[in-house]
Amino acid sequence: MAKNEFDIINHYFAHQQQQRDDVVLAIGDDCALVDVPANYHVAISTDSLVAGTHFLVDADPAFVAYKALASNISDLAAMGATPAWVSLALTLPTIDEAWLAPFCHSFFELANRYNIQLIGGDTTKGPLSITLTVQGLVPRGQALTRSGAQVGDDVYVTGNLGDSAAGLALILNQSQCDQRLTKVLVERHFKAHPRVNVGEALRGIASAALDISDGVIADVKHIGERSQVAIEVDVEKLPLSAELLAFCDGDCQQAQQLALTSGEEYELCFTASKANRDALKMALAHTNVKYSCIGQVIAGRGLLLLQLGKPVSWKLSGWDHFVVTNK
Amino acid sequence: MAKNEFDIINHYFAHQQQQRDDVVLAIGDDCALVDVPANYHVAISTDSLVAGTHFLVDADPAFVAYKALASNISDLAAMGATPAWVSLALTLPTIDEAWLAPFCHSFFELANRYNIQLIGGDTTKGPLSITLTVQGLVPRGQALTRSGAQVGDDVYVTGNLGDSAAGLALILNQSQCDQRLTKVLVERHFKAHPRVNVGEALRGIASAALDISDGVIADVKHIGERSQVAIEVDVEKLPLSAELLAFCDGDCQQAQQLALTSGEEYELCFTASKANRDALKMALAHTNVKYSCIGQVIAGRGLLLLQLGKPVSWKLSGWDHFVVTNK
Repeated sequence: MAKNEFDIINHYFAHQQQQRDDVVLAIGDDCALVDVPANYHVAISTDSLVAGTHFLVDADPAFVAYKALASNISDLAAMGATPAWVSLALTLPTIDEAWLAPFCHSFFELANRYNIQLIGGDTTKGPLSITLTVQGLVPRGQALTRSGAQVGDDVYVTGNLGDSAAGLALILNQSQCDQRLTKVLVERHFKAHPRVNVGEALRGIASAALDISDGVIADVKHIGERSQVAIEVDVEKLPLSAELLAFCDGDCQQAQQLALTSGEEYELCFTASKANRDALKMALAHTNVKYSCIGQVIAGRGLLLLQLGKPVSWKLSGWDHFVVTNK
Repeated sequence: MAKNEFDIINHYFAHQQQQRDDVVLAIGDDCALVDVPANYHVAISTDSLVAGTHFLVDADPAFVAYKALASNISDLAAMGATPAWVSLALTLPTIDEAWLAPFCHSFFELANRYNIQLIGGDTTKGPLSITLTVQGLVPRGQALTRSGAQVGDDVYVTGNLGDSAAGLALILNQSQCDQRLTKVLVERHFKAHPRVNVGEALRGIASAALDISDGVIADVKHIGERSQVAIEVDVEKLPLSAELLAFCDGDCQQAQQLALTSGEEYELCFTASKANRDALKMALAHTNVKYSCIGQVIAGRGLLLLQLGKPVSWKLSGWDHFVVTNK
């Protein structure tokens, strides 16, 4: 891009207020330089959002910025890491200030909220897309991975499930409901809260964790595969919002099915031993985030859905009810 | 992308052999986890290459992969950092194995050569582009920044300058020459060698450094601005390859002008005090990389081009011969 176009972008990137003590050198040299405290590991996650694939070309740039950064922060939360730094690669067809201004405002508002400093990136000309690499810090040996679930552990999720899918259906005009409800659910889709404080609180307590990005039945399988266990979920225990139930006109089964398959929730799903129930209650009390036990870790492989103790026979994308095996 | 498409990509990503001891967790969890040794800083650089902007859509994917990674490694070299980890965000219109296979082969060949492990990334559907975030390690306090140049320092470059611009002109059919020469210069454009061993050797010796990505007259100004000095370059001292002179039919002035403006050279430009001349000679002897003193740091601001001691009056993009001032 031409020099003056860079200047425009730099103007917007200067919006950020966050300056961290551990950033030795930020934007303006060949690399950023950061300082990692002793006894901490660095957690790193990269995600791309591409116009036309992950968001509509005419989507509100404030929502796009929020979603791009929030989904990355959520990956840090799922590891129990504290967010620290972000690199932003932004590809734009043209320098459109009407797009850039709300994008940057939203991006830095969220970055500042989580004490994240923009340390570098690249701005290029091309079809609209955003690639972020976020980095966070986690004490050595305390990262929450997907591989530590043990048979007998409880399975939990934070918040409610299903709202994001309802919001997406409304955005895509696949469903309709009243204005107030539409506003709430669309915002839930775009503006999920990364559960950073929960992830931090779960260090040393949870045996495995991840964030729900593809739907809990798809995501929970990753824990199963990496931990070499099966997961049993009781659909009656799925946490459902009043708004989701209203969206489903009170059809509880429809709400449960949405809750099981709803992606981009950015709630955490985690496992913890029954012996840690009290520790969990204590650790999460100060986070003000609700959490629900939705099932347990069992021997075998796969995912079993139960309703009132009996296997359900629902047909759901990403789940095969014949799949739990002893191997 | 569909699940089986991910499997195809994973197949190619499994090509890598590099496994570093400091990678606690690589691909497969919410984040990668890495271990940073005490007394080291992490250097981080992000670059995007977009089809149609940075390379032709039909460019050889092996060259594209090489260039994307090499340009990022070069940023680490310019900081005096030792490469360690890379995250790859790859956006593809379709899963084209005929494109992916040579891309991955070339990517991992270069990554392995520099002991770099792929720790994560994202594969998405959309217009072809590649965003890399590379990370390296540099001992605390020894990073080579752009801001340390002092009046009286010598100004150096590694290798030769101008070959990349000549190669690009040949690729774009703006120039023509014989087949052997074309092959050499095109390869110089696509396959520059990042000067990692030089960067490492310059720790504690160079006062400032960067890599030449926009042309030495554009890049050297960054040292001037960040160090609040001016730079004087003697065009007769520019290192020119025999191939560049042949490309220019022996026209030395044309070759010098190409050398001054040629981008994507990925040679290092650095400054060092005259007191460090012997130390520099010793430190770079084992690297087998040629280096040339092309000028010196002077008081003021801007860039002065000299030929046999007299200011030149060439018109060059990115350089204004009236620009050296006392402020």
